[in-house]
Amino acid sequence: MGVITLLTDFGYRDPYVGIMKGVIYSVNPNAVIVDITHTIPMGDVKQASFVLSHSFKFFPPETVHTVVVDPGVGSARRILGVETADYIFVAPDNGVLTPIFDFAKVIVNITNERFFLSEVSHTFHGRDIFAPVAGALSRGVKLLDLGEVVDHPMLIPQPKLVEEAGRMEGEVIYIDGFGNVITNIPGSVLDGEVKFEINGRLIERKVQCYDEGGDDAFAIQGSFGCVEFSVKGGSAKQTLQASVGMPVIVHKGG
Amino acid sequence: MGVITLLTDFGYRDPYVGIMKGVIYSVNPNAVIVDITHTIPMGDVKQASFVLSHSFKFFPPETVHTVVVDPGVGSARRILGVETADYIFVAPDNGVLTPIFDFAKVIVNITNERFFLSEVSHTFHGRDIFAPVAGALSRGVKLLDLGEVVDHPMLIPQPKLVEEAGRMEGEVIYIDGFGNVITNIPGSVLDGEVKFEINGRLIERKVQCYDEGGDDAFAIQGSFGCVEFSVKGGSAKQTLQASVGMPVIVHKGG
Amino acid sequence: MGVITLLTDFGYRDPYVGIMKGVIYSVNPNAVIVDITHTIPMGDVKQASFVLSHSFKFFPPETVHTVVVDPGVGSARRILGVETADYIFVAPDNGVLTPIFDFAKVIVNITNERFFLSEVSHTFHGRDIFAPVAGALSRGVKLLDLGEVVDHPMLIPQPKLVEEAGRMEGEVIYIDGFGNVITNIPGSVLDGEVKFEINGRLIERKVQCYDEGGDDAFAIQGSFGCVEFSVKGGSAKQTLQASVGMPVIVHKGG
Repeated sequence: MGVITLLTDFGYRDPYVGIMKGVIYSVNPNAVIVDITHTIPMGDVKQASFVLSHSFKFFPPETVHTVVVDPGVGSARRILGVETADYIFVAPDNGVLTPIFDFAKVIVNITNERFFLSEVSHTFHGRDIFAPVAGALSRGVKLLDLGEVVDHPMLIPQPKLVEEAGRMEGEVIYIDGFGNVITNIPGSVLDGEVKFEINGRLIERKVQCYDEGGDDAFAIQGSFGCVEFSVKGGSAKQTLQASVGMPVIVHKGG
Repeated sequence: MGVITLLTDFGYRDPYVGIMKGVIYSVNPNAVIVDITHTIPMGDVKQASFVLSHSFKFFPPETVHTVVVDPGVGSARRILGVETADYIFVAPDNGVLTPIFDFAKVIVNITNERFFLSEVSHTFHGRDIFAPVAGALSRGVKLLDLGEVVDHPMLIPQPKLVEEAGRMEGEVIYIDGFGNVITNIPGSVLDGEVKFEINGRLIERKVQCYDEGGDDAFAIQGSFGCVEFSVKGGSAKQTLQASVGMPVIVHKGG
Repeated sequence: MGVITLLTDFGYRDPYVGIMKGVIYSVNPNAVIVDITHTIPMGDVKQASFVLSHSFKFFPPETVHTVVVDPGVGSARRILGVETADYIFVAPDNGVLTPIFDFAKVIVNITNERFFLSEVSHTFHGRDIFAPVAGALSRGVKLLDLGEVVDHPMLIPQPKLVEEAGRMEGEVIYIDGFGNVITNIPGSVLDGEVKFEINGRLIERKVQCYDEGGDDAFAIQGSFGCVEFSVKGGSAKQTLQASVGMPVIVHKGG
């Protein structure tokens, strides 16, 4: 059916995303294009990686996930195509696909210019390479036709989760537009007796849904199955002065 | 044909809307999805209700209008499906559909988990319930297959419009991104001799189109058929220091 | 296939764009709608013109490009339909199509109310005229069925590019969301020995891709084939205190 997702740091202000879609429809008139988001902070490969890893599996099989957060555009960095059991990913070789490689069946260095626009700039590969390649893949072109199989893709460090007796240490991995502070600590810890420590604050209150919460930060199992800190009708980000990468400690027991 | 509209307070920054679309296309590959807006202020059921009530009728018959402004997500609040002569609406039972119930042929409490994602979180029913249900309805599943018929949906107060001899009193119901101040006063009053009073200010100037207006606030029949205050090339919101809910008085005659 | 692009100053906050899409799908259920952008500054015809002129050619043949940056909505200004070899354009007669007229095969004054919504407001022609007309054109209605052929469309001044011995003078024509400062100076000047002067600053550094650049502003051939000033991981707009319309001088030779 030809679903293509786009995940970029292009924003909604400029015509860049619209132009990519024009190129895609030129290649595959039957493509169905979905914006995951275009407001990744400029060049923030880590954030893009998190967003992708928690979004991709909600799309139909054979979706072509296209990531253009690419501060190295026009340099010698490679463009990779990755095939998993269910999906195809197209992204710069800058580590943004790190959480995906575990599922990879094949990784290809995309170099076949026959599938690029006839003129390729040094500054807008989203338009000149990613869009036409995604369009081609979505209409059935084989990944292996786009270049050679490679290994050793670039990797980026993943958030740490350390478990010791009576204690677990994770970190803040994302803060959403509601100000919810999302960690990499599995939501299952909420079944036991636990307290959370973040930025010098102790959080003891646990709830099942936002509506049970109050003015002060509470812990909840969030949308991605992990522990999340929230404030009802407010911003836990502000209440906790939290930021991505900040450590979060789980104290187990009474 | 399967048009689905989405109206949420999720914003464009996070992947939440994109994920909902992935779920919808997984259920109905032929769906046509339209964003009404995703920037309703967090949890502002009244604003969502206004936007929906002035948008829904411009869509093709059988469109499934899906509203996820849902501060009670995960609590005991119900999720309603409402069928009118032309449309289906899916929304939390929080009053957001108040202006729609007048046209309702049937109201259903959506409980049939067969049409939900297999795992339902307490925090993201947009993904787990609203999206797959909208997808199912858009490919022809009957509303009555989704749950039991109910009545007594939650209602929210509607903007007041009081008419007395020589005087009408309404209120500001929406302020748009251009700063236009939209009231619930019918545009037909502009055919007579009228003055408007808002926030201690008297507005006497009436125009047919923005281009006839000037630097100071004027009255015009706006896009939704109601009286609207505007400033040419500027913001009536700022000029009038207006806000939603502010009373507006119409003085009739000379 | 029925691609329609939308380019407006409506923003993403209000339901205006969604409503236009509802009207389009009511007229042509098979339309494929692409947002070029909706964040043109309010009424900024010049900016819209630039964005359109650098975007339109990346879309499939027969695309209907629809521009609603229309401060004169509801006044006597005309609405034009323009056919070129590959595309149809629909826009107010306010000069926004100036760069397109060079390619025009025919220009039509769109007046045939049979293709408008049955009620036409004075404030929202995007919904009442542009959307249904674009929908009709995208399903094969002929432009000549929409009104009479006209000439003398309104024109707006185009950015100047003056070449003298050893010197070229152009201007800043767009600043994107990354802070890249885009000029109308052809990228080919970068092949020779050149220095650039903007806002009292001299820029001597030239690079091939952003990644080669540094903290200070450098020149690069940008996505539209023109000279662009950028800062790696920062904003050239801020570094240079640049704004649209600012003159840019090219000094040739050593």
